[in-house]
Amino acid sequence: MGKILRINMNDLTVKTEELGEYAGLGGRALTSSIIAKEVPPLCHPLGPNNKLVASPGLLTGTTAASSGRCHFGCKSPLTGGIKEGNAGGVVSQKIAHLGYSAIVLEGVPKDDKLRIVYINKDKVEILLADELKGMGNYETVAKLREKYGKVGIISIGPAGEQKLNAASIAVNDMDNRPTRHAARGGQGAVMGSKGLKAIVVDDTGAAGVEIKDKDEFKKWAKIFTDGLLKHPVTGEGLPTYGTAVLINIINEAGGLPTRNFSSGQFEHAANISGEQLTENCKDRGGKETHACSPGCVIRCSNVYNDKDGNYLTSGLEYETIWAFGANCNIDDLDMVARLDRLCDDIGLDTIETGGAIAVAMEGGLLPFGDWDRAIKLLDEDIRNATPIGKIIGSGAVVTGRVFGVTRVPAVKGQNMPAYDPRAIQGIGVTYATSTMGADHTAGYAIATNIMKVGGYVDPLKPEGQVELSRNLQIATAALDSTGLCLFTAFPVLDQPETFEAIYRMLNAQYGLNLTGDDVTELGKNVLKTEKDFNTRAGFTNKDDRLPEFMYQEALAPHNQVFMVKDEELDEFWNF
Amino acid sequence: MGKILRINMNDLTVKTEELGEYAGLGGRALTSSIIAKEVPPLCHPLGPNNKLVASPGLLTGTTAASSGRCHFGCKSPLTGGIKEGNAGGVVSQKIAHLGYSAIVLEGVPKDDKLRIVYINKDKVEILLADELKGMGNYETVAKLREKYGKVGIISIGPAGEQKLNAASIAVNDMDNRPTRHAARGGQGAVMGSKGLKAIVVDDTGAAGVEIKDKDEFKKWAKIFTDGLLKHPVTGEGLPTYGTAVLINIINEAGGLPTRNFSSGQFEHAANISGEQLTENCKDRGGKETHACSPGCVIRCSNVYNDKDGNYLTSGLEYETIWAFGANCNIDDLDMVARLDRLCDDIGLDTIETGGAIAVAMEGGLLPFGDWDRAIKLLDEDIRNATPIGKIIGSGAVVTGRVFGVTRVPAVKGQNMPAYDPRAIQGIGVTYATSTMGADHTAGYAIATNIMKVGGYVDPLKPEGQVELSRNLQIATAALDSTGLCLFTAFPVLDQPETFEAIYRMLNAQYGLNLTGDDVTELGKNVLKTEKDFNTRAGFTNKDDRLPEFMYQEALAPHNQVFMVKDEELDEFWNF
Repeated sequence: MGKILRINMNDLTVKTEELGEYAGLGGRALTSSIIAKEVPPLCHPLGPNNKLVASPGLLTGTTAASSGRCHFGCKSPLTGGIKEGNAGGVVSQKIAHLGYSAIVLEGVPKDDKLRIVYINKDKVEILLADELKGMGNYETVAKLREKYGKVGIISIGPAGEQKLNAASIAVNDMDNRPTRHAARGGQGAVMGSKGLKAIVVDDTGAAGVEIKDKDEFKKWAKIFTDGLLKHPVTGEGLPTYGTAVLINIINEAGGLPTRNFSSGQFEHAANISGEQLTENCKDRGGKETHACSPGCVIRCSNVYNDKDGNYLTSGLEYETIWAFGANCNIDDLDMVARLDRLCDDIGLDTIETGGAIAVAMEGGLLPFGDWDRAIKLLDEDIRNATPIGKIIGSGAVVTGRVFGVTRVPAVKGQNMPAYDPRAIQGIGVTYATSTMGADHTAGYAIATNIMKVGGYVDPLKPEGQVELSRNLQIATAALDSTGLCLFTAFPVLDQPETFEAIYRMLNAQYGLNLTGDDVTELGKNVLKTEKDFNTRAGFTNKDDRLPEFMYQEALAPHNQVFMVKDEELDEFWNF
Repeated sequence: MGKILRINMNDLTVKTEELGEYAGLGGRALTSSIIAKEVPPLCHPLGPNNKLVASPGLLTGTTAASSGRCHFGCKSPLTGGIKEGNAGGVVSQKIAHLGYSAIVLEGVPKDDKLRIVYINKDKVEILLADELKGMGNYETVAKLREKYGKVGIISIGPAGEQKLNAASIAVNDMDNRPTRHAARGGQGAVMGSKGLKAIVVDDTGAAGVEIKDKDEFKKWAKIFTDGLLKHPVTGEGLPTYGTAVLINIINEAGGLPTRNFSSGQFEHAANISGEQLTENCKDRGGKETHACSPGCVIRCSNVYNDKDGNYLTSGLEYETIWAFGANCNIDDLDMVARLDRLCDDIGLDTIETGGAIAVAMEGGLLPFGDWDRAIKLLDEDIRNATPIGKIIGSGAVVTGRVFGVTRVPAVKGQNMPAYDPRAIQGIGVTYATSTMGADHTAGYAIATNIMKVGGYVDPLKPEGQVELSRNLQIATAALDSTGLCLFTAFPVLDQPETFEAIYRMLNAQYGLNLTGDDVTELGKNVLKTEKDFNTRAGFTNKDDRLPEFMYQEALAPHNQVFMVKDEELDEFWNF
């Protein structure tokens, strides 16, 4: 087990502690436990009493495939509840190699100076960095790499510095671009409130992660890798087309939210599909398959070049393509890619930002489909902190309030991702009940509703969705504690030995005797810890509801509303 | 008892009903009962399922002194909870004379046209009024008066049309100016969402209000009037200096929130004091005493002229002078008067708008004291719907979010009025526990904490404040059901016969046998009805708290924080 590194941005002190009461925890289990224990639930998310925790998962830093996620946690300025979000990139393994289970940022600075934290095996330094003020993530990472060499970098862009509620935290990828983001819930704003532009992590000469039983670990790591490679989703679908393969699938299912969730199908879906993306990558010399962190065998990401063959963006994911594409009625993949690049650079959640722009489109600020204005909203307005930039950068709910829009597809203050719950009822249960607000990754019911992974539950019927979402949310909370990519859940759900491999690797690494039940228990405990924080922050079952219009406005083409009853949603927490 | 007039803005139909289950109710008791019974608590406040209710009080339309309040109720877009706000002016008595206990506006229009409702003794008409689009309340009232003669007018300005959360509902005063506002909680936005610019009420030839026992009524009405006239506050303080007499008093007490609640004393309080206001009114040919509705004997309002003796604004009240004065660090009463005039014209709550500007000042948008920019924010930005206008017009909480300000003095989404709860602890209990959000009128503890009306409870100590606020909130909820001005509470609290006169008048009017206990019961029932709505809307005791900084940041000059404990606040509802 690693240590906790506490960095106080108020008195600029640093201390290292044993895990103590948090022993045995990592990733989301650790971030959520620290937040729930140490952060007053009614504190202002941008004030001195919130904390920002970065934590590798329990398996991060080992050779376990696809285990390089870095988990971030805080009280969210967007939802007002607890938040965990994770990103790929190169930093998490370096933190683990240095022996840290968590970096906890505390307090807010006494001055308005900008700082970075530099961490290597010998020291932790808090350094002035006013020269980085207002700088985009791309330039920030380039400058820090130039100065510090082969390091992992956690950074924020102008959005985080402005403390905007849609601000993300960026992590540099294997090409040293700031393309991997813990995007949701405004965690970049919390980092900004602490006056911190970046955390630079250098693991040169670090001891690395201890493995108690190396042979046993190696054996199960291979079984795990094999499991990922042989499953049709992680071994074939995702590597070939990336996450964008879902555009056609979800559109076909009638659940691709179009023009601010006013239709479930987008007439021009083909133009922004995974197939089109792959073709563009191939034609233009990009990469149609790309690992987001070292040791990933799924390689679902990509590098997207412009028409002239020059790098434009990386990690052009389904959610982003949907958020700026179908949801904003933009059918040009190149324009979507530009918007993605801007979000990465400015440090913005693409889902929340696309959602806010779609709400602003409905509110009359700009026409649906106006990509030119959308680009300016990011590159000029949000970057330069104009009033309209501040509105959009504050997310969909604030945008809806200032424009008087009643159709705001948000739960607990967070915009829904790329699946309409009226056409895919299971994901609606996850949106409603997740401690995180509307979040597909919290319990990815699409797997079972649409992809028939882990069985099948009819997406158009309310029956069975609560149980499905509950099981998925429990499993995900456990998975999010290991540092494993969520996509490993596909083989885990279908292949018992792939699931077994996870706790066998944990046992081998830490000298434990965990069973499958222990993993489930961990997931349940994480959810209950988060739920308890939210309850103390004032959340009730009334927050476990979808917005009114989804109960009243039928969605084409299925012409259905969300049908899972309130009483059924309330059953979610009976476990 | 009157009837209920229901106006459906969706199908443009009108119907009149008996009170039925609402029999015996008026004013706030009626608006809150209708909202609690008929509006789904989780509906969008600007959507088709919210309703806007206008109701005269039980005594309105009689000769009872100061009984002309018009009560408005809805689900608030600002707080998300139930809302009642009331205004003086001439309309309430006309509604009562026509025999209506309530006008209930339902639905939202199918088109984007603007309409007015015209009501007289023979008909109710819904009329197109696109020519009034974007028009200020002053011009709107002038045009409608020109067309319809001596009518009462309920109207909204551009803020309500834009559905801004700080939008008010205006009522014309006895000089036919739109200076009386049901300002708090964004009720103007709800009216705007219904596509309604104005309700024009003509009581010519109306039957008037029936009094069962005229002699008995007359006897107690006189006792009531005498009671108002002989009490030092309603008979002398308020008529002489108006509500602005409080500037020096509250400043002296260290509870005048200055520069966004960062100090309890304003160095330049004398420049914006009631004494200065009265002097200006006298010197410039304004009116230093003025009734806000027919039959008011307190006459605490005023007419404020500019330096050239031309009319500038009316009803320049303490809260407004504080909101733009001390709270925005503006020490020029003429500039404050201009800001008040703009709020009346654009249709904005002066407390919320001043609060939002103060938060924006703290957020760096403009310097504290910059009255010139503040005026432009209203007259140019909010009036013309610019992005920054939409931010400020959405109130202090939204403004705080977009500017990343952590010190936002709001409860349940509503900015605090002109008394800092750290220096006057009793009002803090009202802010925290009121169903309305931070609202001084819900339980005016200043009376007992500062003015020693109804006894005395030390404002600097937490002891006794919960009981004080509870008793005041119960009494106020009852009073708000009669149509009587809140200021009648001063003599009612001190003089038993003035309290008795209220239920004796009700008995004489309606042929009832109410006792003082019945009045208290009514108040309790109103509060519990409202609380129940809020609970169903998702509110918990966590919403009955002041913002974090008021527990942590001591306020000069007393250097105190808010000291009433959470457990004590939770005791509030034990009645």
